[in-house]
Amino acid sequence: MEENFIRFKKEDLTDYVTTFMKKLGVPDDDAKIVADVIVEADTRGISSHGLIRLYSYYAGRLINRSTNPLTPIKIISETDTTALIDGGNGLGQVVGYKSMKLCIEKAKESNVAIVVARHSNHFGIAGYYSMMALEHNMIGISLTNSQPLVAPTYGRTPILGTNPISIAVPSDKEYPYVLDMATSTVPIGKIKVYEKEGKKIPLGWGIDSNGEITDDPAKIQSGGRGALLPLGGLDITSGYKGYGLALIVDILCGVLSGGANLTDVGFPHSAREADVCHFFAAIKIEAFRPLKEFKRQMDTLIQTLKNAPKAKGHSRIYIAGEKEFEIAEYNKKHGVPILASVIREIKIEGEKLGVPFSLKPI
Amino acid sequence: MEENFIRFKKEDLTDYVTTFMKKLGVPDDDAKIVADVIVEADTRGISSHGLIRLYSYYAGRLINRSTNPLTPIKIISETDTTALIDGGNGLGQVVGYKSMKLCIEKAKESNVAIVVARHSNHFGIAGYYSMMALEHNMIGISLTNSQPLVAPTYGRTPILGTNPISIAVPSDKEYPYVLDMATSTVPIGKIKVYEKEGKKIPLGWGIDSNGEITDDPAKIQSGGRGALLPLGGLDITSGYKGYGLALIVDILCGVLSGGANLTDVGFPHSAREADVCHFFAAIKIEAFRPLKEFKRQMDTLIQTLKNAPKAKGHSRIYIAGEKEFEIAEYNKKHGVPILASVIREIKIEGEKLGVPFSLKPI
Repeated sequence: MEENFIRFKKEDLTDYVTTFMKKLGVPDDDAKIVADVIVEADTRGISSHGLIRLYSYYAGRLINRSTNPLTPIKIISETDTTALIDGGNGLGQVVGYKSMKLCIEKAKESNVAIVVARHSNHFGIAGYYSMMALEHNMIGISLTNSQPLVAPTYGRTPILGTNPISIAVPSDKEYPYVLDMATSTVPIGKIKVYEKEGKKIPLGWGIDSNGEITDDPAKIQSGGRGALLPLGGLDITSGYKGYGLALIVDILCGVLSGGANLTDVGFPHSAREADVCHFFAAIKIEAFRPLKEFKRQMDTLIQTLKNAPKAKGHSRIYIAGEKEFEIAEYNKKHGVPILASVIREIKIEGEKLGVPFSLKPI
Repeated sequence: MEENFIRFKKEDLTDYVTTFMKKLGVPDDDAKIVADVIVEADTRGISSHGLIRLYSYYAGRLINRSTNPLTPIKIISETDTTALIDGGNGLGQVVGYKSMKLCIEKAKESNVAIVVARHSNHFGIAGYYSMMALEHNMIGISLTNSQPLVAPTYGRTPILGTNPISIAVPSDKEYPYVLDMATSTVPIGKIKVYEKEGKKIPLGWGIDSNGEITDDPAKIQSGGRGALLPLGGLDITSGYKGYGLALIVDILCGVLSGGANLTDVGFPHSAREADVCHFFAAIKIEAFRPLKEFKRQMDTLIQTLKNAPKAKGHSRIYIAGEKEFEIAEYNKKHGVPILASVIREIKIEGEKLGVPFSLKPI
């Protein structure tokens, strides 16, 4: 991969994106949050959610004022254990960070808390917010709805978002457990990669405009008017379960908050208000049992799985989040890799905005 | 289907199972709970979890005293929003019912509550407990770990349970949304049916003893020493997501409660203590927004999905739980169908126990 990627110091990238966001009218503290969420994605190897989206998902909307750079958050209703937040059509990362922070504060007092937010925007990696709970020795949950790309079982048009689920659980010596998964079989980006490379896709990833399963990536994307399939694929392999999960995410985010659902959720790169909704929960472990015992049992659980017999041709069983923690450790030492094409784009756009990109590669 | 099934009045079946449980030393009120959970499964068309399991999963363990008929529940720790319960190796249905009831009581006061239980047994359909929240205008969540049948991604032995997830959400005129799904692609019972009928299984349901995908049902079951695959199947169709979900269920049930995990969870039909663990949550909707508005938005969401364009060859898009509500309505009018072979077994065993089965079919 190295030939197409250039590595930079994580702190340098974060500083650059912060400056960049400030230039677009984002307040200092908020700019830091947005930068941290974006660069954390690249750091953890989830480059699909990192700097590659700086323009298409976030900056573009700030420039054309379809996202409010001030993120004027309002608490609509609140109890000791709950809150409903209006994100004021601000930056999803800021809404996400502040909602989860409030959720954790509430859980410190009340042991369990849920905060939902509406009228927000795309918030980046769901795992960023669930992981905020870890240092407080809590289990963190983060869900979001998103623009329609996935067909329901027996449907043929994209109605549901890839609506991700993230849950983070502290452990002792092992890496924390961090599940961060879209409820579709694959993200739309993966289909695009296969199309670009002229490759067929595995059956189960998507359907054509008739709702029939296809191995042709071109039949799924906007031109082909097909859709992604939910996790599980067609009904014969229980795709209705992935559909059920995608829908529950939409309910917990969009209906519990009174925000947008289904096709009413806007695309990040369109100019209209996206009205993305999020759901956050925090659970204090010590309310149930001593923390040390919990963490030790987590370690045992993880080790048992890792030591289990492997399938032919495989030498390792992974735990959710493990790969990302390993990649992050490496990248923090050796630099965070960014696609050369993304750097080229940032250089051009940064110049226009008066935020020239002059970071030195590692 | 009718030729192999005999229909009985729901109330008659419930009364019979209650009497039967009482005969096995289960206190009156608990016997009613167990009977209601079991018969509700048949009523909702989930016959795999109904009377067919009366002996193999529940009565057998009571007869050989590997389940404690008195279900001596103890609250180990408790706050306004949380509780940890020891099920005393009692009946899973009783532990489940009482835990969810406590959870709902707490959520009435605190808006959000979580109750976990350990040292329990197989509790039947997860949806029974999540649905208890509906009449209180709450969202209910019910999870349980279970005996090892599923291999982790890149593994080849059954380590994880089919660990189901159930979430129930109230609506207005439409049926409530009730997701109740195992995190494996299919239940083990489905593999057995294909084996019995000499049919091949679809790729994605299970693996052989080498961890390789197979279409031969015989290679999955105990003789073949393979395993079920998690939702999503192999890694290429994102089976690691189903694996991640199965594991988070095991964490929220087994680790949060300090009970058994993975292969330490016992089989219902073995004599040893199963130490099954459950997780329940209740969320009061009115803590976030007016109930009426919430319910109306649920209806709109459901109607939008139902009215969406259908895939070729399909005329209907289903909502999770919808089929089961329709079946239940029919069965409450026309009788609950029970397999003739199950009735034969109950007649023989009931006679032995001094609880003769003499219900009149409808």
